[in-house]
Amino acid sequence: MRAVDLIRTKRDGGELDRAALEWFVAGVTDGSWPDYQASALLMAIVLRGMTSRETAALTDAMVRSGVRVEYPGLAHRAVDKHSTGGVGDKTSLILAPLAAACGVPVPMMSGRGLGHTGGTLDKLESIPGFRTRLPLDELRRAIATVGCAMIGQTSEVAPADRKLYALRDVTGTVESIPLITASIMSKKIAEGVGGLVLDVKCGDGAFMKTEADARKLAESLVATGEAAGVRTEAVITDMDAPLGRAVGNALEVIESLETLKARNPGPLESLSVELAARMVQMSGVEADLGKATERVRAALSSGGAVEKFREIIANQGGDPGVVDTYSRLPAAPDRYTFTALRSGVVSAMKAEAIGRAAVGLGAGRDTLDAAIDPAVGFVILAPPGTRVNAGDPIVEIHHREGRGLADARRLLERAIAIADDAPPVRPAVLQRLQGRT
Amino acid sequence: MRAVDLIRTKRDGGELDRAALEWFVAGVTDGSWPDYQASALLMAIVLRGMTSRETAALTDAMVRSGVRVEYPGLAHRAVDKHSTGGVGDKTSLILAPLAAACGVPVPMMSGRGLGHTGGTLDKLESIPGFRTRLPLDELRRAIATVGCAMIGQTSEVAPADRKLYALRDVTGTVESIPLITASIMSKKIAEGVGGLVLDVKCGDGAFMKTEADARKLAESLVATGEAAGVRTEAVITDMDAPLGRAVGNALEVIESLETLKARNPGPLESLSVELAARMVQMSGVEADLGKATERVRAALSSGGAVEKFREIIANQGGDPGVVDTYSRLPAAPDRYTFTALRSGVVSAMKAEAIGRAAVGLGAGRDTLDAAIDPAVGFVILAPPGTRVNAGDPIVEIHHREGRGLADARRLLERAIAIADDAPPVRPAVLQRLQGRT
Repeated sequence: MRAVDLIRTKRDGGELDRAALEWFVAGVTDGSWPDYQASALLMAIVLRGMTSRETAALTDAMVRSGVRVEYPGLAHRAVDKHSTGGVGDKTSLILAPLAAACGVPVPMMSGRGLGHTGGTLDKLESIPGFRTRLPLDELRRAIATVGCAMIGQTSEVAPADRKLYALRDVTGTVESIPLITASIMSKKIAEGVGGLVLDVKCGDGAFMKTEADARKLAESLVATGEAAGVRTEAVITDMDAPLGRAVGNALEVIESLETLKARNPGPLESLSVELAARMVQMSGVEADLGKATERVRAALSSGGAVEKFREIIANQGGDPGVVDTYSRLPAAPDRYTFTALRSGVVSAMKAEAIGRAAVGLGAGRDTLDAAIDPAVGFVILAPPGTRVNAGDPIVEIHHREGRGLADARRLLERAIAIADDAPPVRPAVLQRLQGRT
Repeated sequence: MRAVDLIRTKRDGGELDRAALEWFVAGVTDGSWPDYQASALLMAIVLRGMTSRETAALTDAMVRSGVRVEYPGLAHRAVDKHSTGGVGDKTSLILAPLAAACGVPVPMMSGRGLGHTGGTLDKLESIPGFRTRLPLDELRRAIATVGCAMIGQTSEVAPADRKLYALRDVTGTVESIPLITASIMSKKIAEGVGGLVLDVKCGDGAFMKTEADARKLAESLVATGEAAGVRTEAVITDMDAPLGRAVGNALEVIESLETLKARNPGPLESLSVELAARMVQMSGVEADLGKATERVRAALSSGGAVEKFREIIANQGGDPGVVDTYSRLPAAPDRYTFTALRSGVVSAMKAEAIGRAAVGLGAGRDTLDAAIDPAVGFVILAPPGTRVNAGDPIVEIHHREGRGLADARRLLERAIAIADDAPPVRPAVLQRLQGRT
């Protein structure tokens, strides 16, 4: 077999077998496949697609490019959650302690924000001292003692994905359901979980703009997880507007803490409870989803969930005092209040523009090595559906000496619509998909 | 503009503008576009295609990656011919001296054989001493004095094509009409001709297997030539069976000399006369095609054509004695006669298998840096349409100590069919295309 023959097979719409895909992934990992051949194959995959069998084989090969972590002696299945990324999406920060407080082992590996979407690692690192780079033995110890760790991807996990992602980023080959599937699922499978809840975001601020595309991705992710023996469920959720009230790293930590303290009812809490309940059920802690939901609600009202977060923070070197004293988190020195230009009902708050505006303030980054400002961002005072009068505050902008403020105001003006009548309510969870197992 | 945006545009089926294509070609030439981005774009072009406007702009950018040769003070337009490659296709060796003998300036730049197809340079180099690497000033001098030179592509001409071709060869991106068009036409336009005759081969031994595909390529080539101000005509010719009687480098030189001496009537001579007449007309030597044809036939019968070949050989350091004394050419030490297995009419002689068999004997190469044996090859004694009895000689195999002989016999057994009745005669020239100018 020559690399060029494999590329030609995919170019002509053929199916690649397991051996071919293993050879490709191994070659990318050890450098024996040159980048120019890898990128030609990636483009052929983008344009010709892959069968579910190919996607599963590609994912498996990427898992086996590194180690597959194991957690011996756990009473219940380890479970993680993955979101395809959005604006103001801090559910991971809530879910990990919430599920762990219910007895679910949660080895959560997350990423950084890029472009208009935020990243769990950036949010966690706004907590003074919090370490997201734990070696695998510390991860295993955290799972055995605290029951949860929230870390970045370690170099042992799916190294092929890092190489492929870097190449895809510069060759226009990111947008492919099979390649996205293999990238997400290889990391999650290698992380050693027995169950996985996927939050596939859909709408203006999401990678998938339509429900049909989100459905295709969700189906591909679930099928690939199941093929690897991981119980996998997916929900497709709305990302037309930011999720919750805060956008920006430290601001989102505060909103997560408020939610864990059962003081932030609304769509963010509902989604967190639903996803946590699914994790509790998948883990085997509760066989019944209703019972699982009760257990999750009890962890919120009892304070167990927020105490678990305190424990996680302390275990990873962070300042546990932030749980009670939000002023220990970084805060932006300046505020600007964006107000309603007319009276009516807030009918839209376009997530992508708001995410872009947050990057402009310094809350996010356009290249993975750029520095971010953990303090800046937005607090949404009048979310979609709120009736306002002209001049009423809609968004509080937390900025640093005006950096990105003018652009943010312009972007908010375009992103926020005020109508005469209330818009139809779009449910937070649009669809639910379950694997066969 | 970023490279990745340009790649994404083509990936999504968009049209690239002239500036984008110029930037790409310049970047490939000077190395500022990395290979992995170039190959991703090439694959997107293969799968998404290009408009005729894009193909013309890509070709133009490739021309301008190097010099465009000029021949000041010529009485008539310089004209060249290009064949898309076949088995036993020695028309270039006949056409260049034939057209030059009629007064056409012919600066012919050719390539080497690869895979089952032969190459003009390899054939010429079987003439002892013949130099195909002439610098541009020697080329210009040869045009001014002899009226013809037969050389390889110089490094000044379309350097982008060499880089792109090397990349396409290993990334499965050869098979694309726009990319093939730009590769062929950039070299021919840069060579400085005012007219071009294209022989697009079609059938078993050709790159284009069907007449429809050959037609598409011919149309693309003609449109691109015309867009660059070069008079361009194309003929689509049959390549199901080898052209003429000889396959193999020195053997094809002998057949070319016999044809130039007007001693080899048949399809090879007819095609050579037709193509040469078109060159004479394009050049402006004769305005009328009928008169041009008469002039070409006169150059054959008068001996002017073969004397012009002698002059070309002498001018490029070759042994002009080969024209009269074929034994001065390399000859294979061994012969094997392949005979008819049954009686009937030779109904097929599949060109690709015969080309493959010739490579096995040593007459061709699978990689561009491999050495070849100029002496070995085949002489076809009973071409398609010949009535034979079992045991009659069909092909004389010229080999060196049995190298490749067993494989060649097996390939010939599969390539040659003998039927009860004569097959329908397929015309040598299937279609003719003329440009608008």
